[in-house]
Amino acid sequence: MQIDPQTLVDSINQIWILYAASLVFFMHAGFGMFEVGQYRSKNSSHQLSKNVLTWAAGIIGYFVFGGAVSAIVAGLTGPESLDIAAAFAYQSGSSVDFTYWLFGGTFAMATASIVSGAIGGRSKLSGYVVYALAVGTVVYPVAVGLVWGGGWLAQMGFIDFAGAGVVHLVGGTAAIVAVYIIGPRMDKFDEDGTPNVIRGHSTSLMVLGTLMLAFGWFGFMTGTVGTVFNLAEGGSGVALGGFEMVGRVAMNTALASGAGVVGAALYPIIKGRRPDPDLMSMGMLCGLVCVCAFGHIAGGYGTIVVSVIAGFQAPVIENIQERLGLDDVVLAFPVHGTAGIIGLLAVPFFVPGGFTLAQLGLQALGIVVLGGWAAMSCGLIYGALKLVGMARVDRETEINGLDKHHTDMTNYPEFMGQSSVPAQEARTERIADGGESAQTSDD
Amino acid sequence: MQIDPQTLVDSINQIWILYAASLVFFMHAGFGMFEVGQYRSKNSSHQLSKNVLTWAAGIIGYFVFGGAVSAIVAGLTGPESLDIAAAFAYQSGSSVDFTYWLFGGTFAMATASIVSGAIGGRSKLSGYVVYALAVGTVVYPVAVGLVWGGGWLAQMGFIDFAGAGVVHLVGGTAAIVAVYIIGPRMDKFDEDGTPNVIRGHSTSLMVLGTLMLAFGWFGFMTGTVGTVFNLAEGGSGVALGGFEMVGRVAMNTALASGAGVVGAALYPIIKGRRPDPDLMSMGMLCGLVCVCAFGHIAGGYGTIVVSVIAGFQAPVIENIQERLGLDDVVLAFPVHGTAGIIGLLAVPFFVPGGFTLAQLGLQALGIVVLGGWAAMSCGLIYGALKLVGMARVDRETEINGLDKHHTDMTNYPEFMGQSSVPAQEARTERIADGGESAQTSDD
Amino acid sequence: MQIDPQTLVDSINQIWILYAASLVFFMHAGFGMFEVGQYRSKNSSHQLSKNVLTWAAGIIGYFVFGGAVSAIVAGLTGPESLDIAAAFAYQSGSSVDFTYWLFGGTFAMATASIVSGAIGGRSKLSGYVVYALAVGTVVYPVAVGLVWGGGWLAQMGFIDFAGAGVVHLVGGTAAIVAVYIIGPRMDKFDEDGTPNVIRGHSTSLMVLGTLMLAFGWFGFMTGTVGTVFNLAEGGSGVALGGFEMVGRVAMNTALASGAGVVGAALYPIIKGRRPDPDLMSMGMLCGLVCVCAFGHIAGGYGTIVVSVIAGFQAPVIENIQERLGLDDVVLAFPVHGTAGIIGLLAVPFFVPGGFTLAQLGLQALGIVVLGGWAAMSCGLIYGALKLVGMARVDRETEINGLDKHHTDMTNYPEFMGQSSVPAQEARTERIADGGESAQTSDD
Repeated sequence: MQIDPQTLVDSINQIWILYAASLVFFMHAGFGMFEVGQYRSKNSSHQLSKNVLTWAAGIIGYFVFGGAVSAIVAGLTGPESLDIAAAFAYQSGSSVDFTYWLFGGTFAMATASIVSGAIGGRSKLSGYVVYALAVGTVVYPVAVGLVWGGGWLAQMGFIDFAGAGVVHLVGGTAAIVAVYIIGPRMDKFDEDGTPNVIRGHSTSLMVLGTLMLAFGWFGFMTGTVGTVFNLAEGGSGVALGGFEMVGRVAMNTALASGAGVVGAALYPIIKGRRPDPDLMSMGMLCGLVCVCAFGHIAGGYGTIVVSVIAGFQAPVIENIQERLGLDDVVLAFPVHGTAGIIGLLAVPFFVPGGFTLAQLGLQALGIVVLGGWAAMSCGLIYGALKLVGMARVDRETEINGLDKHHTDMTNYPEFMGQSSVPAQEARTERIADGGESAQTSDD
Repeated sequence: MQIDPQTLVDSINQIWILYAASLVFFMHAGFGMFEVGQYRSKNSSHQLSKNVLTWAAGIIGYFVFGGAVSAIVAGLTGPESLDIAAAFAYQSGSSVDFTYWLFGGTFAMATASIVSGAIGGRSKLSGYVVYALAVGTVVYPVAVGLVWGGGWLAQMGFIDFAGAGVVHLVGGTAAIVAVYIIGPRMDKFDEDGTPNVIRGHSTSLMVLGTLMLAFGWFGFMTGTVGTVFNLAEGGSGVALGGFEMVGRVAMNTALASGAGVVGAALYPIIKGRRPDPDLMSMGMLCGLVCVCAFGHIAGGYGTIVVSVIAGFQAPVIENIQERLGLDDVVLAFPVHGTAGIIGLLAVPFFVPGGFTLAQLGLQALGIVVLGGWAAMSCGLIYGALKLVGMARVDRETEINGLDKHHTDMTNYPEFMGQSSVPAQEARTERIADGGESAQTSDD
Repeated sequence: MQIDPQTLVDSINQIWILYAASLVFFMHAGFGMFEVGQYRSKNSSHQLSKNVLTWAAGIIGYFVFGGAVSAIVAGLTGPESLDIAAAFAYQSGSSVDFTYWLFGGTFAMATASIVSGAIGGRSKLSGYVVYALAVGTVVYPVAVGLVWGGGWLAQMGFIDFAGAGVVHLVGGTAAIVAVYIIGPRMDKFDEDGTPNVIRGHSTSLMVLGTLMLAFGWFGFMTGTVGTVFNLAEGGSGVALGGFEMVGRVAMNTALASGAGVVGAALYPIIKGRRPDPDLMSMGMLCGLVCVCAFGHIAGGYGTIVVSVIAGFQAPVIENIQERLGLDDVVLAFPVHGTAGIIGLLAVPFFVPGGFTLAQLGLQALGIVVLGGWAAMSCGLIYGALKLVGMARVDRETEINGLDKHHTDMTNYPEFMGQSSVPAQEARTERIADGGESAQTSDD
């Protein structure tokens, strides 16, 4: 049969990458529901605006310049010479170029979305959009250039298959830095620092979002193998590409999602309490984050063990964060940051050649570099946003809810009678504003 | 390696089309959430019945005869001779026939679904189902025959890649015609014509539905390339098929979804207000609708510019519609109709040979023919439905909510205490029925 | 062009199976929303915990031993000799092994999930998890071994394409056995046996879940064709595999989902009532269940007829179940059990050789064996769970809602004011506990 090998390779690879990219895009719907469910309804519409805008602003920025940043960074820090024109070639390239650009763009916006959930309920929409744009088009692409683009960390030998560091540690760090700079919601901590539980308004939506994220994760992981086929040497034939590992990656993704739940559930069980679906959902994501580091090389049992640990640490880190006065609403750092670190540190135990301290050192180096880069760049950005007054809403807006003041639209106009506001919150409002808000009608 | 070229072509093409068809099917879940969130809870269960029935009645009708209509119309109006038996061949054809029939069926039901959201809150379920069936199995397939089937408009040179006209303009026109014939919800306009804002009951579900639709849109757009491979001339080999443009299509889909949001957000910003997530969601869909016309030929920057315009015009057209007394609940015409027109008119700026007035004229011709066909046929159908009393529910049913009267089932029996009904609406009820409804218990 | 035939076959098959597996995984999100919407909000968080834990515990168990059970059963009951090592080979196999294991695992957890919805509102979480684990890793794999693995029923000539028996009859039987052993919710039946309607808290989520399930079903059905390509005889080339029937399978899946809705809607219409979206959603699933038996061989019209019957019987069986005092909350047995039986009995009418009583007898045999196996094994398991007190929560927990007592977390803390509890339920509470619960604050 006659077929051009390049045509076969390119077409089959695009089938795979476009399938995967559509699933990663769907993670935005997942992030949206995961986050909105964890907010009080008075702030929930505002939260949804963030999800829509992260994608909207981000994907345009990623076309205009973000998609070129990683190639430029790789050129600056790796063995290949810098070629600015080639870095921007995706803007007017071939079908294959466009397809891989899209896959990269969905990853960039997933990274930016991690921040979105952490800082809601008190952050300004304008500041967030600037930040998300910066994370998606600069902070993340630099990390890509250093690792997957063939830049410095790649040259050193740092291993991060699908972004436990590049995506999740960077996103989680961006989130916790923003949390620190913006400060906690005013009712999160009592004056003596005792943390209050501020329940989200819908566990249903939160769990729905988690399972949608897990669905998208299959595209995130198996798309990262990159190619089904490659051109064989000499170009006269077709050879197996990244697909040689795709089944392992898919299996480990499934096992990690399950084992993370088990890990998170163990914490309350040990404390004599029953696990709730919110925490178990967090655990599922922890497992999925850690497996990003090693899903291409680990065995099933190894994946289960590490993912149980990744799930278990989330409530532990949550407690530490609360003692430090950090109000990370959706546990973005425990889920993406520390779970990502655990996955990266587990890599040396799975590398084909066997464990070496050298590889462990390289993994630690990568963690420090990626986390440090994200912390430094994000600190500068949100610090600047704070200086110009774009970080945080005023006190009254926060009390009355961001939805009403920002857009005059509540999420659920029929269900938000004054009577349905939790007692404690209603009380806070009355004290804070002398009773005026009690007369504000909700529709 | 030995493989029959036809086997390779058919199998790989089916992988692609079945993937795409499943995503387009998923748009029904998207339409469902997008629409239900924009209705008051008293009408929301009724709205969901429409979504389920559109698919159920429609896909059966599309099997029995709808799938043949486009081939018949193409035969009657194009160069190929009419072959009734061939038009119905999909009913007992090959695997490939069945697969492409399914892809067509999911498109037909998407077109019919556009109507569903526009006319809720006062239209009868029975009338809607007849209408949706007619749109999905006659009105839409005729448009397909004229354009994609190779019929008259195709022969003229009209270009509509993925249905900005065939699907969206036809669906949007079918919606606004039905809106005009049925008339507005009784509390939409004051006696002097001032429009009231009637908020939907859940922005969360509305945004969820939008993002689900955008996910499905990737299948809608990239599936429309039609083939991965074709048989090479002579049949002894395999050549690249529609997939030569698939990456461009996917990239432009992503960019359009983002740019539409930006366009819609600009309108309130210019007016000094903050954009809300409902409007931005509408903008995302506007971008996605317009890109259907030219996604296979435009560059990224061109797509962004046109999609910003498509998003921006939605609130403008909304205002015009309201002045005309049209109660298009989900903005079906601005989102699908005028955004589709904008996309079709943008095509001449992207055609490989460069802009010509002749192509612009052809695009205008296509808009007039498709819009005219939809307006005329849909006017006749809903006009007839109105004559036989199947268009609109009675006054009492509308006041009390369609859910209670139609199925004795409210959507959220636990959350619908009398106290949660917005004040204005409760007042309307009391005036309208002398207080009786106040005693109707909700479960 | 040079390519190793095995590489081509394995890679393309994995593309297909991984796509399908991701859709089947997504059914867990569908089951979650389908079920949670049908429960009162006081039990809904608990229900979500089940959905998360079914996957988490199940997929790990399916890796540790569940994936080996079917091969062992096939070895014990079929012509191939038993090979324990080969049965566990998936744990350290090739990419292809891992991929097919994952596809099997998603099916196993779908089977286990069927139970989840039936027994909520009064069953203990711990007992359910043990049960789901047993169903997913033993009860279901045994059925697989008997049929698809090439075991005894396969040798006899029993036909069940995608699991009308193996998945749905087994799952539905497991559900109704558990329902019988646990007993009805305390307020489901009056003392004289009159059944009460206990409405779920969100039709929106229920319908969303249904459409998500239908989306996943496309992967469930078309993935079951198993292969796109096979190695040609002699191994020097590639031949068409199960994909020769994939288009028919996809078409019939679509038609069955529509026809099931029509069938379910006919029942209330005949009774002079209007169909509600809950019942029509059930009908969609009934059609999808029955087509699992014969979707690879039936024509479109045949599929429509059988699916209408499958949809129509659901409310009939519901009535019978209620007379028998069975409280099957989500109609798991009518939807999965009897609809599956109808599909299996329809197979002889579609087999290529024409109807034979012998095939009908074989189908009946398969129904008796699979249903009997599930009933017996599940009866033993839940019987044992009841003996050790893991079956049912205590009376007070059931009255106050499983969410509060199990995890101290309600699903919707803002929307659950005392006033929003339906009158009858609030009354029950007051009588049952002397008013104490009225003072329990909800956050």
